[in-house]
Amino acid sequence: MGVAIGPSLANPSPAEHPDALNTLVTLLEADLAACNRTIVARMDSPVTLIPQLAAHIVAAGGKRLRPLLTLAAARLCGYSGERHVKLAACVEFIHTATLLHDDVVDESLLRRGLASANAVFGNQASVLVGDFLFARAFQLMVEDGSLMVLAILSRAAATIAEGEVLQLVTQNDLSTPEERYLEVIRGKTAALFAAACEVGAVVAERSAAEAAALSAFGMNLGIAFQLVDDALDYGADQAVLGKTVGDDFREGKITLPVLVAYQAGTTVERDFWQRTIGASEQSTADLDRALGLMERRGAIRTTLERARGFATAAKAALEAFPDSALRCALLDVADYTVSRAR
Amino acid sequence: MGVAIGPSLANPSPAEHPDALNTLVTLLEADLAACNRTIVARMDSPVTLIPQLAAHIVAAGGKRLRPLLTLAAARLCGYSGERHVKLAACVEFIHTATLLHDDVVDESLLRRGLASANAVFGNQASVLVGDFLFARAFQLMVEDGSLMVLAILSRAAATIAEGEVLQLVTQNDLSTPEERYLEVIRGKTAALFAAACEVGAVVAERSAAEAAALSAFGMNLGIAFQLVDDALDYGADQAVLGKTVGDDFREGKITLPVLVAYQAGTTVERDFWQRTIGASEQSTADLDRALGLMERRGAIRTTLERARGFATAAKAALEAFPDSALRCALLDVADYTVSRAR
Repeated sequence: MGVAIGPSLANPSPAEHPDALNTLVTLLEADLAACNRTIVARMDSPVTLIPQLAAHIVAAGGKRLRPLLTLAAARLCGYSGERHVKLAACVEFIHTATLLHDDVVDESLLRRGLASANAVFGNQASVLVGDFLFARAFQLMVEDGSLMVLAILSRAAATIAEGEVLQLVTQNDLSTPEERYLEVIRGKTAALFAAACEVGAVVAERSAAEAAALSAFGMNLGIAFQLVDDALDYGADQAVLGKTVGDDFREGKITLPVLVAYQAGTTVERDFWQRTIGASEQSTADLDRALGLMERRGAIRTTLERARGFATAAKAALEAFPDSALRCALLDVADYTVSRAR
Repeated sequence: MGVAIGPSLANPSPAEHPDALNTLVTLLEADLAACNRTIVARMDSPVTLIPQLAAHIVAAGGKRLRPLLTLAAARLCGYSGERHVKLAACVEFIHTATLLHDDVVDESLLRRGLASANAVFGNQASVLVGDFLFARAFQLMVEDGSLMVLAILSRAAATIAEGEVLQLVTQNDLSTPEERYLEVIRGKTAALFAAACEVGAVVAERSAAEAAALSAFGMNLGIAFQLVDDALDYGADQAVLGKTVGDDFREGKITLPVLVAYQAGTTVERDFWQRTIGASEQSTADLDRALGLMERRGAIRTTLERARGFATAAKAALEAFPDSALRCALLDVADYTVSRAR
């Protein structure tokens, strides 16, 4: 059946990755190429709309950060086989499935700077192709045959859904405690980062302590990553972010920048946040006003400081591993996660 | 955490099932009660919206037909353990997840005679809780620990999604061949019936031939079941159907009654179908006209005849098993599948 796949998917090139990811991509070039081949081969279906829609999002220039973590973790643990390639593809399928469902949930029109799949193919197809990719991920894991891997990734999948539902519940609710917001991002984002890393240790048959260290690296990295994403939503220009700036504001999403600005705000400022985020009553000038209030209350700076803290914790988790080029590259990724917010 | 569950979920009673299912439910009463307890216990989450929404659909008086098939298949194979209970719960979770996503896809307002979950809780929550239940199903399978069961149900999950996408692609397309329609219903409905039955044979560690026989029973039963559903959508009153009559018509869904009426129709009749189904241009009187044309072309009768053929094939697949009360009850279920269309 097949579907035309551009060169970017079939032959990933380091040049397409942000500078700070270059070293990691170069070190894992053969693994990543194999992973991309697996992704293309296994997203196929006789129902041609499935590979068409999947290619739209899988080929849309994602950084492959999560599968790279699986590949890197396995190699860091001295693994010399091929199982990690298929499992990295599983991780990307689960991630892609959640993106497809997220965009339906958020009614987003942009994803990675391109029209989102739901905007092009409709919500119905996005929900169903997400389901397909999710099921296909489990088929790949079954082929791999490790119940431990299946346990890690099925738990992560349930945790992601819990985080997403919790995010829905906290929407528009400015009384959300910061700890609850962290629970949301641990679930919706960091759980898969953690699982992606842990799976690498598991295929290498390393000790539980090393698997836990890699899981902690991924968890902290994922939290830092999402914190920066939430800061960028109020700070970056559209080209950097690859999605519409102010999306979170318009959706009334409760993120740390909003919580900081709200909690530190005067009564008048709080009234503004209650109207725009709490009651979703917004006019066109409100986003600029929101950005101004965030600047005044140091909301972005505080969010990025928090992110730096988690990135530092991520790096500390790698101390258990001997020095190597791969370990250095992973430490750089932790730094990049924060430094991409310029 | 927990959520208040009505007596119908905690203590399923045979009286709530259609007459023809009574015997099966009575024979499996203890198993079904255990399965329902597992469902309630394992749909729980600290994110309370999840069990609330799940209870809305899980407790909404479903027949539990698919988990009953798993329980029955295992016992028919002489299984005396407890694993089938958890796997029957998996099957119901997968089914429930697809229902939640279906209702979002179809924008249905009714499900089993009650307001659908998306109508009460919104599309976003329905998508995400569906994802949660799907992930939870895989967690339960991992706890069970059989890679063969995981293979059967992950393949079924992928096939369901393929069937649903194919249905989306054929929507409004009156040139859809009957074989393609059958492919849709094999995927979206019958694959899970087949897998539910096959899993029962697998836990009982029976021969591949017996597993294949039970899978064939489920597959044919599922096709018959969906054919009758598609007939009922144009024939039953709302109380029997538990959903809005004419839903398929309004959605431009390509089902056998429509294909038969279209293919046997005059030019004028075909124009009617092209306008109402092909171009989705409908006025309020069109459903009655559609029902009249179906009556004239014997579309419902033909559909039910086809269903009877598959029900007969389902029953034939059970010939490999010695006579028993349970086997009789399963044969009756095949008959009931067709006879519920009165």
